Amino acid sequence: MPATPFSRSFFVSQPRFNYYITPIFRSLTCQLSSSLFQFNAKSSTVRFHCALSQAAETESPTGGRSGALTPTPPVTGEVQKIDVNPPKGTRDFPPEEMRMRNWLFNNFKEVSRLYGFEEIDFPVLESEALYIRKAGEEIKDQLYCFEDRGNRRVALRPELTPSLARLVIQKGKSVSLPLKWFTVGQCWRYERMTRGRRREHYQWNMDIIGVPGVMAEAELISSIVTFFKRIGITESDVGFKVSSRKVLQEVLKCYGIPENMFGKVCVIIDKIEKIPVDEIKKELKTVGLSQEAVQELLQVLSVKSLTELEEKLGGSGEAIADLKQLFSLAEKFGYSKWLQFDASVVRGLAYYTGIVFEGFDREGKLRAICGGGRYDHLFSTFGADDIPACGFGFGDAVIVELLKEKGLLPELSLQVHNIVCALDEELQGYAAMAANILREKGQSVDLVLESKPLKWVFKRAARTNAERLVLVGNSEWQKGMVRVKVLSTGEQYEVKLDDLN
Amino acid sequence: MPATPFSRSFFVSQPRFNYYITPIFRSLTCQLSSSLFQFNAKSSTVRFHCALSQAAETESPTGGRSGALTPTPPVTGEVQKIDVNPPKGTRDFPPEEMRMRNWLFNNFKEVSRLYGFEEIDFPVLESEALYIRKAGEEIKDQLYCFEDRGNRRVALRPELTPSLARLVIQKGKSVSLPLKWFTVGQCWRYERMTRGRRREHYQWNMDIIGVPGVMAEAELISSIVTFFKRIGITESDVGFKVSSRKVLQEVLKCYGIPENMFGKVCVIIDKIEKIPVDEIKKELKTVGLSQEAVQELLQVLSVKSLTELEEKLGGSGEAIADLKQLFSLAEKFGYSKWLQFDASVVRGLAYYTGIVFEGFDREGKLRAICGGGRYDHLFSTFGADDIPACGFGFGDAVIVELLKEKGLLPELSLQVHNIVCALDEELQGYAAMAANILREKGQSVDLVLESKPLKWVFKRAARTNAERLVLVGNSEWQKGMVRVKVLSTGEQYEVKLDDLN
Repeated sequence: MPATPFSRSFFVSQPRFNYYITPIFRSLTCQLSSSLFQFNAKSSTVRFHCALSQAAETESPTGGRSGALTPTPPVTGEVQKIDVNPPKGTRDFPPEEMRMRNWLFNNFKEVSRLYGFEEIDFPVLESEALYIRKAGEEIKDQLYCFEDRGNRRVALRPELTPSLARLVIQKGKSVSLPLKWFTVGQCWRYERMTRGRRREHYQWNMDIIGVPGVMAEAELISSIVTFFKRIGITESDVGFKVSSRKVLQEVLKCYGIPENMFGKVCVIIDKIEKIPVDEIKKELKTVGLSQEAVQELLQVLSVKSLTELEEKLGGSGEAIADLKQLFSLAEKFGYSKWLQFDASVVRGLAYYTGIVFEGFDREGKLRAICGGGRYDHLFSTFGADDIPACGFGFGDAVIVELLKEKGLLPELSLQVHNIVCALDEELQGYAAMAANILREKGQSVDLVLESKPLKWVFKRAARTNAERLVLVGNSEWQKGMVRVKVLSTGEQYEVKLDDLN
Repeated sequence: MPATPFSRSFFVSQPRFNYYITPIFRSLTCQLSSSLFQFNAKSSTVRFHCALSQAAETESPTGGRSGALTPTPPVTGEVQKIDVNPPKGTRDFPPEEMRMRNWLFNNFKEVSRLYGFEEIDFPVLESEALYIRKAGEEIKDQLYCFEDRGNRRVALRPELTPSLARLVIQKGKSVSLPLKWFTVGQCWRYERMTRGRRREHYQWNMDIIGVPGVMAEAELISSIVTFFKRIGITESDVGFKVSSRKVLQEVLKCYGIPENMFGKVCVIIDKIEKIPVDEIKKELKTVGLSQEAVQELLQVLSVKSLTELEEKLGGSGEAIADLKQLFSLAEKFGYSKWLQFDASVVRGLAYYTGIVFEGFDREGKLRAICGGGRYDHLFSTFGADDIPACGFGFGDAVIVELLKEKGLLPELSLQVHNIVCALDEELQGYAAMAANILREKGQSVDLVLESKPLKWVFKRAARTNAERLVLVGNSEWQKGMVRVKVLSTGEQYEVKLDDLN
């Protein structure tokens, strides 16, 4: 859309139209300074003292630090400014960021709907009990948890799956399986603030509840591939590493490791690329694995092909069967080029039981883009009967970094259909009338709410990428008409109010 | 959309098509019990013990109560179920609730865009300092505040305006006034749980920053009226009570009440319909008002017409001028029938300075539907220079109650374009292929991920309101074709995969 100012050609080449404009330049005053903070200095001074004396009385209702409003001396003193930044690790979404967020989320949602999934959501504040799992997960140490005024232990949700399981259990027999549910929600982790990691992020989740077979995982990966394609990401940018937790399970079984150690072992192994391998070995021994078992485990984890894995485990186990089926389905779904087997993928959450996968950038610059898998036994840890289930989480942070890297972030700007302006303060009500006629016809209108010089109006029109300028002038109004200027072409015409559309 | 099962006519009247179906009935087994919690009982038992022994070791990372996973004896004992309800005062959004939320929010957002507003958002967790105002507001006592792990005082936002002001101050000169911003965000108040009030709700906010004149308030009210009309609410259902805080200010000035008491007085007066008038009088005296001033104030508050108010205050003040202008603009905007002057409206937030308004149901059954006003001096309480500003908040709770009362809540159901099903387990990959062809053309597809009897498929199609059933059978597939049944008419045809759309 045209982002250049039209004022020049407008004033130079349209003398007839100028007739309406010239008087306005004289009659209008610019009531607003262009600077945000020089405005209304007089009234702000009056209020200043008032605010100060209020501040002097401020006390925190909880006895904590009140921070912003410190009791500085009144009359001439300075009010201490509040911290204008959002809390550490969190984000504001001013319009430009919000447009990007909406673009991303709309893609998440559109893909989910193409796959026949229904949207759901849960409270961002959940009972802490939902996240207390005894597997040494990173997520537990990073819980953003509190005690509320009713002495309940609550936490800002660090992930969405436990809430989903809670809701499924709550719904019980009232819902028919399989459920295909998706959500896009904010999650919180109290992390050390390193490498630009934040304490909140939004996550797109898709989950299939009630399907035991690998078709479910194949469908989930298909939806992520569809999402990538929509936003311009190809298989040369991104791949999926796929494995199954059953691989580890089979190894552990051979060495007689009790099943309840499984989650713990997975969580330790997930750290394999983050901490030295000797540390991993030590931790595995601590949870009871023999030297031999540790060795075997680490060897299996280094396997990068299904054939090699089959040689190691034999061809009869569920791990091999599941993985083979997934790769065969990937051919049919059309995304086999995106997929590769990698035994080292286990994912960091304790509850996965089968196929696990994660999306990665092929240049290896970024953290995992998304990840998921099968969690057939989560429900029983909540005291309900198990239901086969799988799902994935897809954050809003890494994907944006990747899109930036690839130059694929869209340019999104505000765009209104019309800017409507009265040529005289007395006519502002009529301008509103014209604006509402357009709005009733589905056209967006930025109505100029003050008396402003036309130069200002054109500048604003350029900023909002308005397609048309609608001017309400006295002589046209008396004929029941307004003047329209198409801002991309400079075309001008008068039109009856009723015909405005 | 057709919600009736098609299986009967399908099986009875389509013998040729039955040819493909009959063998499937024999070869397929229903792998899933229809009951959500009878499924997979075997594996759940295995895992049961595992979960139990994990639970026995569970401890809260913060030393608090872990709640769900109590250390009950393993092997045969019962796992204590988690609380399947969301935390007290909060909501889950299962699909049906989420559809309603999306419908409501989309109306909020569409109206905002028609008015040329840009969407923004802020963290749900803010610094507590943002909300510490010394005016005795209810909101302060209901703050959902915590100390985080870094000993920062934080709060779940109880309202959106302070965050907005913070962001405007942060943006400083980088943005051009006026700003027209909207947001739909969740807010939290730790209220006593009475009369079905919740602790969280979503709020639609629209704010205009940088416009000193009443046109801004008129535009805001216009947008709410547009919203009401869109969802079927008329001026016989709802009205706006309008006043100006300047009315009170003028009265207080007469009695020499210092300006810094203004917010406090307003907050007290706002409670006038909630607590006995004697209580109000007592509170007003406590903050320093004389018997006479209290009397005069209460008299002014009972005024219900602008003419009467003008008699009381004289015609020269800003209060009268602003209100007269607003009522005059309302005529032009076309919503004067929605508006009535009512001096008792002051709103509960300390920071309002001029016009205040609230939407109410004419039957008087419900709390205020929405409310807003001018807050020209909020910025200076944050240590910045003031900017003229006004806005409103519109919650998601009362409006839904009103729509229910009026029978105006829309019926929203899941609706997919296609249900795609393989007639043989071996063909599932091909069914996925067909599904993806449709999805690439923008059609939503519920892909059947298991081998299921057709009766089950029709039942599901009815539940998802699928328009078409696409069946992938062996003999058609060999011809590069699939069979399509239009579920509303019963029409059936074979179609080439490439022509599927």
